[in-house]
Amino acid sequence: SRNVRLAVIAGDGIGPEVVAEGLKVLEAIAPASGLSFEQTPYDLGAARWHRTGEVLPDSVLDELRGHEAILLGAIGDPTVPSGTLERGLLLRMRFELDQYVNLRPVKLLPGASTPLANVQPEDIDMIVVREGTEGPYAGVGGVLRKGTPHEVATQESVNTALGVERIIRYAFEQAAARPRKKLTLVHKDNVLTFAAGLYQRYLKELSAEFPQVEVDYSHVDAATMFFVNQPRRYDVIVTDNLFGDIITDLGAAVAGGIGLAASGNINPTGAAPSMFEPVHGSAPDIAGQGKADPTATILSVVMLLDHLGAAEAARRVEQAVADDLLERPGLGARSTAQIGDAIAKRVSG
Amino acid sequence: SRNVRLAVIAGDGIGPEVVAEGLKVLEAIAPASGLSFEQTPYDLGAARWHRTGEVLPDSVLDELRGHEAILLGAIGDPTVPSGTLERGLLLRMRFELDQYVNLRPVKLLPGASTPLANVQPEDIDMIVVREGTEGPYAGVGGVLRKGTPHEVATQESVNTALGVERIIRYAFEQAAARPRKKLTLVHKDNVLTFAAGLYQRYLKELSAEFPQVEVDYSHVDAATMFFVNQPRRYDVIVTDNLFGDIITDLGAAVAGGIGLAASGNINPTGAAPSMFEPVHGSAPDIAGQGKADPTATILSVVMLLDHLGAAEAARRVEQAVADDLLERPGLGARSTAQIGDAIAKRVSG
Ligand SMILES: CC(C)[C@H](C(=O)O)[C@@H](O)C(=O)O
Ligand SMILES: CC(C)[C@H](C(=O)O)[C@@H](O)C(=O)O
Repeated sequence: SRNVRLAVIAGDGIGPEVVAEGLKVLEAIAPASGLSFEQTPYDLGAARWHRTGEVLPDSVLDELRGHEAILLGAIGDPTVPSGTLERGLLLRMRFELDQYVNLRPVKLLPGASTPLANVQPEDIDMIVVREGTEGPYAGVGGVLRKGTPHEVATQESVNTALGVERIIRYAFEQAAARPRKKLTLVHKDNVLTFAAGLYQRYLKELSAEFPQVEVDYSHVDAATMFFVNQPRRYDVIVTDNLFGDIITDLGAAVAGGIGLAASGNINPTGAAPSMFEPVHGSAPDIAGQGKADPTATILSVVMLLDHLGAAEAARRVEQAVADDLLERPGLGARSTAQIGDAIAKRVSG
Repeated sequence: SRNVRLAVIAGDGIGPEVVAEGLKVLEAIAPASGLSFEQTPYDLGAARWHRTGEVLPDSVLDELRGHEAILLGAIGDPTVPSGTLERGLLLRMRFELDQYVNLRPVKLLPGASTPLANVQPEDIDMIVVREGTEGPYAGVGGVLRKGTPHEVATQESVNTALGVERIIRYAFEQAAARPRKKLTLVHKDNVLTFAAGLYQRYLKELSAEFPQVEVDYSHVDAATMFFVNQPRRYDVIVTDNLFGDIITDLGAAVAGGIGLAASGNINPTGAAPSMFEPVHGSAPDIAGQGKADPTATILSVVMLLDHLGAAEAARRVEQAVADDLLERPGLGARSTAQIGDAIAKRVSG
């Protein structure tokens, strides 16, 4: 079996609990996948910051580069100034490892329960391709006259041809490979005319290369409406870093809840490791209680397996999750570990 | 009766149709309101732009200043480059008339139909106080090396102490006047640290002046989830111009659809006219067909009446809308004018 060097960042809050279950399932599928996983745990997040003041030392970032992939739980804690860990650790990895594709499937699995009335699984089946390395997340901006009655705070969205072309190209490729072959740009081109102009430019330019893909556009505000009343409208969505953040949380909510939403931060060039993580945050309110649903992490493991080329193993884990979901309505509350055990058992069985 | 100079901008698409019904209801309530309305129609929007190339001549903006209030239908048309009318007309009015409060109630009225399962009218009853004159809507930014493989497009959110203090103060006042007295800031303070810092600063500073108001915070991504699975969480929300745009469309969708969502662009100082408009856009796909629901415009007229101090008249129109809504499930499809007629009749009867 091929050896895969996997860095594991359990992180904050419920991160360690859900990652443990993700790894349990990964180990269960490993023999059948043709892969073996050499795991290196990295102690990063709130605890380390409190202990040492370090967020992500350069040397650790360099070590991470030596891995083929990263599995991450969650980052962020109320005892740390907001943004410190998110910007300094999570976003720094996405940016410095050039994980420009933030891939987020939004799919209502049978058995999952949506808060929407009159929606069937086939109505919600899309992939959001969120840009991951620029836009409003660039960290550009500043504060003038801080703390005074004349304070000015700016926050700049920086969008480059390099960044926009490659994310739209990736989204076209995804759309071309799906039965519906429809790509929708979500932005706000009637207001954010500069930033949206670049997205519209490459949507148009690349559509010539993908004539088989139908192209559409939604304003981000309208898109949130369509997510709840016409989700069928969407097949593949491409959008910027911030809009992608917002609509994929909404997407998670309508597709069965944040407990099920997986994501991949992908560097398609392979020049640096890609990182897989549940969309949910660290949920400090329920941390340590065995209440967190590890399914989102397990589905992120599915994305990891696909990324590593182990498609058959990925399908098997996916099926195990689907089967587990179908039984949930009849079961009582299960702990994080019980859900992980049940899915791991299906995978090995 | 007191004479009110009302500027009317019907605008594009379904704008003229819904505004006609709004005015019908306004005329029906006028005798009882103690107000009479001297209406000046302004021909602004796509047609004028095509005819003359003008969007909003300075002289017209000056004339608008001479009115007490503005009723607006909708702005925007696919035959005009995106942003031209939105930025040049709608946003220019909001900015130059310093309508810094974009007030958007999100309330599920009995009889309205929500796409959410298991939600009762009392679960959705909030007011979104959206900043209306700065933030990512500032129009600041630009494009370098346009059209080349090295293009860079920036879009800057500009936030000032003046702008943030006054919108948060207004939101506290709203919260203090409501039974639940809860104010939630919606932002993205773990990523947009500069802009969010200013909002957090004034949330904290002003909470000392309003000790009776409970203060809370949601990330904008999480807020979209809560809108669909825990809308009761919110009472009054304060947020920036862009996040407010996004969450109020979602709010409209969950509270019965965009056909019911009203808004006021308010300059609380009275130094310039406030403007009332439905949240929906110009919906060119259904324009001219008598299919648009004028209820959002009629509820915007309710906000206009409240703004003018005619609270009793406002309640009467509101009640007429509520009564009409309760009958809708039993009725077939009605035209725009039929809905307007029915509500106007209840108001006068
Ligand atoms: C934790 C936060 C920085 C992050 C983001 O905004 O990208 C999260 O919300 C996500 O969606 O992965
Ligand atoms: C038409 C557009 C410029 C406007 C906005 O973004 O503010 C609209 O969406 C709204 O919410 O009033």
